[in-house]
Parts: sequence; C-alpha cells; structure tokens
Amino acid sequence: MYKTILDYVRRNQLFDRGDRVIVALSGGADSVCLLVVLNEMKQEFDLALKAVHVHHGLRGEEADRDSNYAGELSEKLGVPFSCAHVDAAGYAKEHGMSVEEAGRHLRYKIFEEERLLFEGTKIAVAHHGDDQAETILYNLFRGTGLKGLGGMRPLRDRIVRPLLCVGREEILAYLSENGISYCEDSTNSETEYARNRIRKVILPQIKEQLNARAGENIIHAGLMASKADAYLEKQADSLLTNHGDLKKDKDGTVYQWGIGTELLLNEDDIIRGYVIRQMIKGVNGSMKDITMIHVESAAALLFGPAGRQIDLPGGLIAVRTGKQMWIKKKNVEDLVDNHLEVSLPNVDFSVFSYKKGMEIPKNGYTKWFDYDKIKCALSVRYRETGDYMTLAGGGRKTLKSYLIDSKVPKEERGKIPLVTEGSHVLWVIGYRISEYYKITDDTHTVIQMQLDGGKVNG
Amino acid sequence: MYKTILDYVRRNQLFDRGDRVIVALSGGADSVCLLVVLNEMKQEFDLALKAVHVHHGLRGEEADRDSNYAGELSEKLGVPFSCAHVDAAGYAKEHGMSVEEAGRHLRYKIFEEERLLFEGTKIAVAHHGDDQAETILYNLFRGTGLKGLGGMRPLRDRIVRPLLCVGREEILAYLSENGISYCEDSTNSETEYARNRIRKVILPQIKEQLNARAGENIIHAGLMASKADAYLEKQADSLLTNHGDLKKDKDGTVYQWGIGTELLLNEDDIIRGYVIRQMIKGVNGSMKDITMIHVESAAALLFGPAGRQIDLPGGLIAVRTGKQMWIKKKNVEDLVDNHLEVSLPNVDFSVFSYKKGMEIPKNGYTKWFDYDKIKCALSVRYRETGDYMTLAGGGRKTLKSYLIDSKVPKEERGKIPLVTEGSHVLWVIGYRISEYYKITDDTHTVIQMQLDGGKVNG
Repeated sequence: MYKTILDYVRRNQLFDRGDRVIVALSGGADSVCLLVVLNEMKQEFDLALKAVHVHHGLRGEEADRDSNYAGELSEKLGVPFSCAHVDAAGYAKEHGMSVEEAGRHLRYKIFEEERLLFEGTKIAVAHHGDDQAETILYNLFRGTGLKGLGGMRPLRDRIVRPLLCVGREEILAYLSENGISYCEDSTNSETEYARNRIRKVILPQIKEQLNARAGENIIHAGLMASKADAYLEKQADSLLTNHGDLKKDKDGTVYQWGIGTELLLNEDDIIRGYVIRQMIKGVNGSMKDITMIHVESAAALLFGPAGRQIDLPGGLIAVRTGKQMWIKKKNVEDLVDNHLEVSLPNVDFSVFSYKKGMEIPKNGYTKWFDYDKIKCALSVRYRETGDYMTLAGGGRKTLKSYLIDSKVPKEERGKIPLVTEGSHVLWVIGYRISEYYKITDDTHTVIQMQLDGGKVNG
Repeated sequence: MYKTILDYVRRNQLFDRGDRVIVALSGGADSVCLLVVLNEMKQEFDLALKAVHVHHGLRGEEADRDSNYAGELSEKLGVPFSCAHVDAAGYAKEHGMSVEEAGRHLRYKIFEEERLLFEGTKIAVAHHGDDQAETILYNLFRGTGLKGLGGMRPLRDRIVRPLLCVGREEILAYLSENGISYCEDSTNSETEYARNRIRKVILPQIKEQLNARAGENIIHAGLMASKADAYLEKQADSLLTNHGDLKKDKDGTVYQWGIGTELLLNEDDIIRGYVIRQMIKGVNGSMKDITMIHVESAAALLFGPAGRQIDLPGGLIAVRTGKQMWIKKKNVEDLVDNHLEVSLPNVDFSVFSYKKGMEIPKNGYTKWFDYDKIKCALSVRYRETGDYMTLAGGGRKTLKSYLIDSKVPKEERGKIPLVTEGSHVLWVIGYRISEYYKITDDTHTVIQMQLDGGKVNG
C-alpha cells in the first residue's frame, strides 16, 4: 500500500522537496495511517511533519482518550504534536450551524493557524477512496456539475489528500499488518445524516447487489469529470486571456471583467458557462454561494435583448450590453461600453435548506421560493408577451389579466419589474408571487430573493 | 407537458420538417404517451408517423392484449400501424444472450426494417427522464467515462427520444388527465436485475432519504457530462483534422490513422484519450467492444519506448513508432513511418461477465484474468528491471528469479513476451499467469487474452 500511495503522491505532485506538512490527526484509523505513511515518506521528499489534533469538547472521556492516543503515537514516531481545544457546540450555536459543520470549520481554522505557526507549506488530511466515492455520490444526488462530480482533489489550496488512492479496507489491513492500533473512528459519528446513509447503506448495497467494483468505478468516472473540468477551465481561461476585457482599480483589484457577446455565442454552451464562472470567480475572488443557477441565469442574458442584468451573490451583477457581457461589482461606477439605463432593481439570490418551522419573511422586498421547482434560468426583466402566473388551483393566468384585475393602469404595466423563469412569472415585484413556487411542507430547498435597498415597496 | 416536450424537441432539433417517423409502440404508458404527443406535434413539423409494435412471442395472452391495444389506439389516432412477431426466446437461445437482450436486438432490428419500408427518417422511442437517471447510475456503477455519464442522447443514429425531458409520473398524469388508457407496462418485467434494482429500490431510496430532486440532479449532471464529452470529441477531431495522418485504401476505407507522439504528449491527458478513441473509431468503424482499458493501454504506449504495440478488438493494433502513434488494421501491410521489428505476438483482449461454472480455458494461448484486479493500463512487452509476479500465498517473486527457477537460459529470458500492468506481470506468455489475477469465486468480470495464431506454445 505504501508504494501505491507513493506513486499517487508522485503522479499528482502532492509534495515538493522540503515541504513542511501539518498532519490532521484525529486518532482514528485513517489519520493514524496517514501519519505513519507520511512519516515513512519523509526522506523521499525531505518533509518536516507536525501532527495536530483538535479536541472538539464533545464526547467527554472518549475524546480525551483519542487526544491521548494521538499524542502518544506522535511521540513514538518522533513527530512534533500539538492539541487544540475548541468548543464546537458553542460555535455551532453562535453561528447557527450544525455541530458537525462547526467542527469542520474549527478544525480547518486550527490547521491553518498551526500551519502559519509551523511555517508549514501543506496540510495533509486523511480522506480516502471510500470517502471520495461517497462525496461524488453525495454531490451527484444534491446537484452538481463536472466539478462536483470530480469529488475531492488530491491537492487544492495547500490541502493534500495522499490517501485518496486507497480504500478504507486497505487502510485497516495495513494497520493490522503493521500492528498499529487506532481509536474507533470518532469522525463517523460526526458525519451528517445524508453522508452516513450513503456510506453505510447506499454504497454497500450498490456494491453488493449491482457491482462489487462500484466504488472504484465511481472514482474513475469522477476522475474523468475532474480532468474534463480542468481542461474546460483552461479553455475558458485562454479565451479570457486572449479576448477578455479585465478592469482593475489602482490597487490591482479586479472590479469588472467582460468579453464579447458575439464571441461567447459562437462557443459551445459548456464553454460559455465556464467563461462566466471564471469571470465571476475573478471579480468575486471566490465561488462562494455561486450556484449553477446563477451561472445559467447569467449565461441566459446572452440570448435576451441588450440591457438586461441580474444580481449575483457577493455584491456582483452580470450585465449584458450591446456587444459585451460583463461581470462587475455593483458598487463600482458603471464603466461598461454602452451607458445603460439600469432601472431594473437589484435582486440578490441565496439558496439554503428548508427546515419545517422556519419563518417565511412577510414583507415586500424579501421573498422565498421553492428552489426545487425552478428548472431553467431566472431573469429579472420587464413583461413580455406570453408571461403568465400560476393560480392557487394550479391553473394559469396571463400576467396581463392579473395586472388588469389588480387595476394597474395600462401605462404602468410595462414598468413593473418581474422575476421570471422563461414565461413563467415567479414574482411581480411590488405585487405578488406565483402560487407555483411557494414554500410548502414538501419544500427541501429555498431560494431567497431580496430586493436591494427597498427600491420598490410591496 | 406537451409544451415541455415541444420545447425539448425544438431545442435539440429532434425533428426536421417532413420527417417520417417510426414510433415504437409497446402499448405501455410511455409509448402510448409518445404516440399521442407526436401525433399532436405532427402539424408543427409536418411529420408522417407510423406506429410499430413488436410481439415477442412471450407472455401469451397478455402480449396479445398489448398488441391489440396498440393497434386500436393507432387506428383511433389515424396512424398507420404494423405489428411484427418475433421469437425472442429462440433468438436468445440461438445467440447465447438473455431473453431481454434478444428482445432489444430484435425490436431495433424490426424498427430499422420498418423504417426502410416506410422510407422513414427517424425512429422514436419512449425513454423518459426516470429511464435516463437510471441509465446514468447504471453506467456509473458499472464503470464509465463522460460518455456513459451523459446517459442516452436525445438524438443519435436516427433514434429520437422526445420524452427524456419528462418523468414517469408526469407521463401517467398526462394520460390520466386526457383519459387515455394503456396496458400495464410489460417492459418493466423484461428489464434486467440490475436496472430493476436501481429503478425500484436504489433511486426511490435516494429520493426519499437524501434529496427529493435527486433524479433531476442526476440528469443535470449527466447533461453537463454529455456536453463536455461532445466538446472534447470536437477538440480531438480538430487535432486529428489538422495534424492526423489518415490512410485510406482505394475504396476509401480507412485502414490506418496516426498522429505525432510529440503533439499528443503536449496535450492534456483527457484529450489524448479522446484522440485515441476517435482514431480507433475511425479505423474500426465503431467502438464495439472497445473499453476504457483499451484506450488507456494504447495511450500508455506514448510513455514507453518506441516500437511497442498492443492489440485492440476488431482486429486493430495500436503501435507507437518513433514519432507517430498509430491505430491500424492488423491485416494491412505495415506502412508506418519506421519499419518495425514487430516480433511481439498479437494479443486480443475481450471483457465479459463471469458466471460461476464457466469453464476456464486450459491452453497456452487463451488465458482468463480477473478484470476487477486490473487498475492500470496493460502492455505487451519484453521484460524490464523490477518486473515481478505474485505467488499463491500472496507474496512477490521477481520475474528474474521465476525465470531462473524455470530453468530458462539467460539468453532466452529477454525474448519471452509478457503481458504486464506496470511492473506486475500478468502473463509470462508460453509459461504461467500470475496468481494475483486468477479467476476466483469472487470474480465478476473476466478479461480474456488470446494469442494470435498460436505463435507461442505454452
């Protein structure tokens, strides 16, 4: 197994000579194996290791036992060790997240702090092949593109995952062959319900009933997806480098990035999406809170008339002018090629899980919709022929007759901003939302839309 | 729902004006819906329809009832109808396939015959969104690249699938709303075990326990994979058009296709695979029996010394010469740029499912191996330093010491052809195979390797 991992590390260039590596050590089988293997690999790459254990302040004595074992093992291997105590439960409460999520946040925070203290260059974590198959299925079921289908990357943002090439069983066999003990894996009890279902029920069932090799097959398909993803990103980058218009302020911060609409329209659908994604990432600095629906909604602007825009998370907007498609920061003065009459309000989208009992906002500028009902790209625009809404009984009503019934004067009707999915109106801003998209007991995911600065009162 | 399907048909350009369409009509809900919808769509595209029912000679009266209903419905809709009788069970026996497989073969054969009779341009089949999600999972679990992750294509080789954009529930609701009856879906009982498990157990469980929208999410991820696949194919085609060396005989038949090794080595891994795949497809005429392992084995030639070759299904070989990588027909005189000393034997690979009780060939020129044990590309080559075999106990033995123990004279040792996975020797041709890859009771899939013309006797 050591050789498999060494090959994997070499092939993916996980380490450079002289790397200083923080090793995340829970004391469970996976992380124990990671530390032992990296310690063996030390000479090969001239690595300096430091093991870091995070005590979550949960599970009382059991957690103390894990901490102690992690410390003892490190000492035995001659690896410097440190243990950090955190209050996962308190942090969870404070930040309104689950204890598991809080634990993950805190762990990576500690690892990063320890890395800086240690002058470390990498952080090694113990995710293995089974975790990878589980991650790919989890992403697939929840909705993902090629990036998510690719699962975890062996190296990203200084995090390395040398064990992705081996399975849980191989790890256990290796530890038992080498007489290395470990704590019963405490992280398992920490993982959330969905992941646990996949790990304990769905994946074993698939392996047993459909294909014993399903785990590896999933990982292989994921690898193809991640290679395709990397290639498509490279193609998008090259288009942007050669044809993009990147605007930076005097500090060098990107505030606006655009590319010709003609050029984008001549590219494949999938490349258009990657170009927009790269522009968003460039202007925003990250893809935080950006979902597929944002990218698709921005891409959909290309097919509509010039002048339309949509809001994106992180205070960005996507604007289509006559000849260019722009991603820009909202607070920056409009510098795009055609001066726009942007009278449409800014609408922020955010997506989150719905839990029963959540209070649905009851005001004119924040609306919740059932995200699962949305199948196509959303637009913020004025009305067009064919627009309709869904009534309580499930029937349709044209927007025109709704506006007539609502006694909106004819000359005002064209000035009301709408959020639409094709011709289906989700929200007549300032008036009502469509029955079709309302939150029900069956809702799993909410998309919240929020008007900027209450420009319209509803 | 009609509008959803019409949008889908338009977006994917499934029909051209004046298309003449054979509609596959089992009499079950899906195909009844298909016929009704296409009949409604007739004017839109000026379609001529003909419904074709295949009676499989199975399930006695129930099948007669389905046939009758299919005929009645067609008459009611004013669509010409024909019913063909086939003997699926007999065909299955004759061709050594399952009855389901035989049924599928025969159906498509009939549809194609009917298409020719009708001067038809397309064949419409009733696969819907649930079938698509099931197909994607089925491919993912059994092992696939981006192509399989993409699932069924809406239009391929004259087969159109207009219902891929709607789910089974929508179809049933549509039929019930419109008061259209149908036969209990006879095809369900025909589908094989694995697909049935996915349809009836695994997918419903995922939807219920993990994400109600999992079906659509799987389809969406599949769509991204199929777009990426199409784009990568286009990129590979453009490389081959600009830099490939295509050799045709006087009838215009391609017998050899090559491209510069330097150029391929400079491309991304994923593009290399697509280029090789396209060359194989071009020379072979199809991708029949070509698996991922063949493509990867051919690509691996690029990283080894010049002069190596491997056999591919369909009587092809992949050869790496000094400056070119070729896919060529074996029976064609060697026309590659460097004249090669091809003294390595040709080895044909084929992959199939293992069923207990199958008789393992006991001769020197046909060997079976456990396909599931192979993780990397295979090579046919002579020995190199570091080559080893696995012994019955699981231990390793260097090839050198095996050959010494087998009393092979020193000067002969370098002349024995091997099949290898990296340094691990699967088969010392003419001698023995490695214990590691032997067929056991746990074997699911066999890779058979067969020597061409018994050049070596073992």
